[in-house]
Amino acid sequence: MIKVGIVGATGYAGAELVRIFSNHPHVRIAALTTQSYSDKPFYEVYPHLYKYVDMACEELDIPALVEKSDVVFTALPHGHAVPVAEEVVRQGKKFIDIGADFRFTDYKVYEKWYKIAHGSKEMLKQAVYGMPELHREKIKNADIIGNPGCYPTGAILGLAPLMARGTLDPGSLIVDSKSGISGAGRKLSLNTHYSEINDNTRAYGIAAHRHMPEIEQELGQLFGKEISLIFTPHLVPMTRGILSTMYGYLKEDININDLRGIYANYYKDETFVRLLPPEMLPQTKAVFGSNYCDIGMTVDPRTRRVIVVSAIDNLVKGASGQAVQNMNLMCGLNENTGLEMPAIYP
Amino acid sequence: MIKVGIVGATGYAGAELVRIFSNHPHVRIAALTTQSYSDKPFYEVYPHLYKYVDMACEELDIPALVEKSDVVFTALPHGHAVPVAEEVVRQGKKFIDIGADFRFTDYKVYEKWYKIAHGSKEMLKQAVYGMPELHREKIKNADIIGNPGCYPTGAILGLAPLMARGTLDPGSLIVDSKSGISGAGRKLSLNTHYSEINDNTRAYGIAAHRHMPEIEQELGQLFGKEISLIFTPHLVPMTRGILSTMYGYLKEDININDLRGIYANYYKDETFVRLLPPEMLPQTKAVFGSNYCDIGMTVDPRTRRVIVVSAIDNLVKGASGQAVQNMNLMCGLNENTGLEMPAIYP
Amino acid sequence: MIKVGIVGATGYAGAELVRIFSNHPHVRIAALTTQSYSDKPFYEVYPHLYKYVDMACEELDIPALVEKSDVVFTALPHGHAVPVAEEVVRQGKKFIDIGADFRFTDYKVYEKWYKIAHGSKEMLKQAVYGMPELHREKIKNADIIGNPGCYPTGAILGLAPLMARGTLDPGSLIVDSKSGISGAGRKLSLNTHYSEINDNTRAYGIAAHRHMPEIEQELGQLFGKEISLIFTPHLVPMTRGILSTMYGYLKEDININDLRGIYANYYKDETFVRLLPPEMLPQTKAVFGSNYCDIGMTVDPRTRRVIVVSAIDNLVKGASGQAVQNMNLMCGLNENTGLEMPAIYP
Amino acid sequence: MIKVGIVGATGYAGAELVRIFSNHPHVRIAALTTQSYSDKPFYEVYPHLYKYVDMACEELDIPALVEKSDVVFTALPHGHAVPVAEEVVRQGKKFIDIGADFRFTDYKVYEKWYKIAHGSKEMLKQAVYGMPELHREKIKNADIIGNPGCYPTGAILGLAPLMARGTLDPGSLIVDSKSGISGAGRKLSLNTHYSEINDNTRAYGIAAHRHMPEIEQELGQLFGKEISLIFTPHLVPMTRGILSTMYGYLKEDININDLRGIYANYYKDETFVRLLPPEMLPQTKAVFGSNYCDIGMTVDPRTRRVIVVSAIDNLVKGASGQAVQNMNLMCGLNENTGLEMPAIYP
Repeated sequence: MIKVGIVGATGYAGAELVRIFSNHPHVRIAALTTQSYSDKPFYEVYPHLYKYVDMACEELDIPALVEKSDVVFTALPHGHAVPVAEEVVRQGKKFIDIGADFRFTDYKVYEKWYKIAHGSKEMLKQAVYGMPELHREKIKNADIIGNPGCYPTGAILGLAPLMARGTLDPGSLIVDSKSGISGAGRKLSLNTHYSEINDNTRAYGIAAHRHMPEIEQELGQLFGKEISLIFTPHLVPMTRGILSTMYGYLKEDININDLRGIYANYYKDETFVRLLPPEMLPQTKAVFGSNYCDIGMTVDPRTRRVIVVSAIDNLVKGASGQAVQNMNLMCGLNENTGLEMPAIYP
Repeated sequence: MIKVGIVGATGYAGAELVRIFSNHPHVRIAALTTQSYSDKPFYEVYPHLYKYVDMACEELDIPALVEKSDVVFTALPHGHAVPVAEEVVRQGKKFIDIGADFRFTDYKVYEKWYKIAHGSKEMLKQAVYGMPELHREKIKNADIIGNPGCYPTGAILGLAPLMARGTLDPGSLIVDSKSGISGAGRKLSLNTHYSEINDNTRAYGIAAHRHMPEIEQELGQLFGKEISLIFTPHLVPMTRGILSTMYGYLKEDININDLRGIYANYYKDETFVRLLPPEMLPQTKAVFGSNYCDIGMTVDPRTRRVIVVSAIDNLVKGASGQAVQNMNLMCGLNENTGLEMPAIYP
Repeated sequence: MIKVGIVGATGYAGAELVRIFSNHPHVRIAALTTQSYSDKPFYEVYPHLYKYVDMACEELDIPALVEKSDVVFTALPHGHAVPVAEEVVRQGKKFIDIGADFRFTDYKVYEKWYKIAHGSKEMLKQAVYGMPELHREKIKNADIIGNPGCYPTGAILGLAPLMARGTLDPGSLIVDSKSGISGAGRKLSLNTHYSEINDNTRAYGIAAHRHMPEIEQELGQLFGKEISLIFTPHLVPMTRGILSTMYGYLKEDININDLRGIYANYYKDETFVRLLPPEMLPQTKAVFGSNYCDIGMTVDPRTRRVIVVSAIDNLVKGASGQAVQNMNLMCGLNENTGLEMPAIYP
Repeated sequence: MIKVGIVGATGYAGAELVRIFSNHPHVRIAALTTQSYSDKPFYEVYPHLYKYVDMACEELDIPALVEKSDVVFTALPHGHAVPVAEEVVRQGKKFIDIGADFRFTDYKVYEKWYKIAHGSKEMLKQAVYGMPELHREKIKNADIIGNPGCYPTGAILGLAPLMARGTLDPGSLIVDSKSGISGAGRKLSLNTHYSEINDNTRAYGIAAHRHMPEIEQELGQLFGKEISLIFTPHLVPMTRGILSTMYGYLKEDININDLRGIYANYYKDETFVRLLPPEMLPQTKAVFGSNYCDIGMTVDPRTRRVIVVSAIDNLVKGASGQAVQNMNLMCGLNENTGLEMPAIYP
């Protein structure tokens, strides 16, 4: 059994790890730490897990936590993962940060967008961006994973095959994403207050969201040089799910069949990317609670543009499910272990 | 492997069976029949199951279907299950009706409330009401199961311990239930049209709903004589879940601790009934997608009434999950097989 | 023009007053006070009112506010209205408290349920419970109004005709209410956090909610002696609206036609109570944004109980609309002025 | 008083006309026609209008209807408005089609996209596209109005100032719209079935929706030559509202202040277009139930793109509110009559 410690277990990503692990045959939870609910039974904080977890939340004691864990997950606001990572590395364990502290290959990008100094440029260099579809082999051997952000997961998977091939003019890229509210976490705010959100849709952080440089890093790497794109996040009144609609100008003269062939080939060995048949389009409900990324696409010959649509559950493939996928790889397990549940629909 | 045939597979209860079976280690789906989607791949009808099921929907051919199945499930409008049941019995297989045709011990009650003649009074006599918490032993040996209705499941489990003990005045019983919209099925109607339902709550079928006599049958049996109660169903704007608030006048002078003791004892061996700790109250989201029935309660000494609240997912414990629980019992499997998934939250 | 001052204008009830006044032909807003948004333009706090209100929020200066107002409204947490009321009375203006400080005829009931001492028992004696359908004449001459709570409005209007006539056994009364989330105000809390509420229904404060004694006071007064009833509030995932389902045992042998006649007669002169035709039942969406209370009912001869259903918009008839109705009466205007807008549907 | 006849009154656009007219001081409804609810009181079909309208629905008798009306509105599926229009013109009355039959200046575009022959190319030539902000003077003198589609209203108002000025590269235009479900009308369909829609977001009709050529017609006219753009509609789980996010490449080197100045100047005399202050962004809830189009924008210097966001209520400014605005202009009334109600929020 793999012993896991979860730091920041009472946020939504933390609770989703616990839910997934409740069905994972090779994992035992060693500790659930929290700032706000110390000593409270975890099921009082998350009633759906009553009878699944009888551990109490505990305050974070880094060395003790690492000692009793084989793999440590952090689900913390940015800037807080480094001290945990340091101790994990010191004790020779594995580390997966669901937050933003280990996602960037260039610390200057992190510091510019997150507006704080990075606590350990050394460790950042060793970290691997935890998207198995792009970096599987590196992940297997990594000690530190920067788990991708929710928006970047849907955007990168949606555009990777075309960027890797150089099919799109990188100056033309637009990612227009529609997210459920759980992406904003359990922290209270007027922007997550039910009466303000229900029956409401809006954009925010236009061309200024921190997930934009993360998307640019990975797509630029695939493309072979730096790119700048537009990313517009929106909040729509649903709990889970991100639908991303992506636009790019075609440099090649290809039709929809060519296009589908490119995707089919690129993802031919992937379990968690489902290229939908031509007559279907992605919808967030079809991946609700599951680790899938559904992808559909079309070509508009009038404007010579490709339009790709992807759907994920932001808390699963966009956070904790992908983290478990990474853990499985790092621990030599079958990558799909504990993750092969279909979505709940309707 | 148990081969199962699902008749009416493209309704919500049918699709939920398929979802549950996708994680059931001992089941193989033999056939999915439908009226409306003949020859269409099932995943086009239910996109969340893409990559899980590659069977096509087929038209119902009763003898052929029964022949290739060990257990046959019907999820049909009332009045349509009898011909299937007859063939199942003829071929010596097992039968579970998720509809209403085999729930009543007295055919006259069925005929009065459903306004059609019952097609086989003989088979009705052999049928067992498929609530394992009340009729486990009979279910193990049954060939025909009438799977409980969604409202009755939450109401009966909520009141059974007190009715069995005779604690409540049966003339005082009120069941006020709030249901999500999936309970009305996938059939189109103005009452399930998004724009009419969103941000709307209302009562319907007050003291006239067909689930009322079903609740009265089971609670009356526990109480030891016929009872009449009030049942008021409501539609609230959510997809899944039923919250039932139940009121009864106490004949005994008991306090909240006594009351909790009665429930704890009655359900002490049950996996799928969770008596919540005193500081928690049931909420539908805590059982969303799971087979649990959560129960909480209080006593109001001013009016000498007990108030019990139960929460279920109408499509799982209120339909297909309970049906699988019954199948497990009938086939000698561990009752919980394939059903031990926690709810999805948030 | 009537000059109105609104204390606590940035809560939902305050903002709803501003919305209603934007269409009221005889009102000019003199001041909008707030604790949190001082000096901010009101439209930044409530963007729907951009181009309607260009006033800034101001900090509360009681004497100055009262001086520039003819009528002062308070929409504050309980315990904060008395100092404002005192100054209003001193300066001889009119006062309407949308909070709970002036609703009770007996200060001991207030102190028991709200757990603080009442700041002015003298003023409490002069205050009138602001439900025009019950106390119209007193309201016309009142200086201090305790505006009814949201749950009590729907419950009292739903049961008043029968309680006034003595038709129901008061020991049998149950009020089961389903409320939208805006009733909990704009204050942040996990109980109003979108992801916790969406697709969720639950009960709270069972037989212990502060609106219970308020309902008992008014219904007891109509009945002619003190009563104790059960009140169970529920939160359902919608923004506005309260549906109350009410149960009582009939002391008289009356049928549905008699019953409808009693209601029709009792409310024959009321604009804002709509007794629905027999084939219609109340639903919250049919009163969304309007000042109506819709009422429907049935008799269950099997259990000899009457079941009444009422629907209101908690922020209009359940708060600010009713407050304007009171203001109209106090100022000698037509009671309906500014309030005759239909609901928005769908 | 202006007598209005509404053909197709029991769809959502028809009912919204009735709601608006219930507060319009110069209108009397002469007839409400319907296919499905003949002879039924209108309030049974739309319960929010109980006590506002006591007319019954009637079957369409075109000559009789036109005779008793001064202005006739049609809210019908495309292809059905022409016979009504012909009779209106014959009798010399005014005509406003809320459907698609009179929106196109070129009948060939209509026939290509709607796949039927146009019934009267003559009348189409006389028709005016009913967007007052673009065609006010023509509308005043028109007899036949083609009322804009819901998506086009938000898109055209969002881009008009820049297209009129030639600021954007027309080959770069992308309109990504997110719509509430009422835009799909009251007609039953799986795509508007509550359980399929709730907690779900998806795209549809990508680069193939009939509103695309309508947007292109009006923006092309402003730009001075034909354009081709990408339009992607999405359904998000809310009842009302369209948020459109629009992207275009800047041909000029202008900054955000220049940009805001262009919009401020273009819309300086418009009541129903609200250019939001820099610190605010449009959200659909801020226009819910109102006739406003809220607009916000930003410039992304990295990609030299402008991003404009607009929000409307699809049933008001996107349909019936704009139709009443047109009627007011055609009848010589103040354009705003009956339309100056703020949104309902929250």
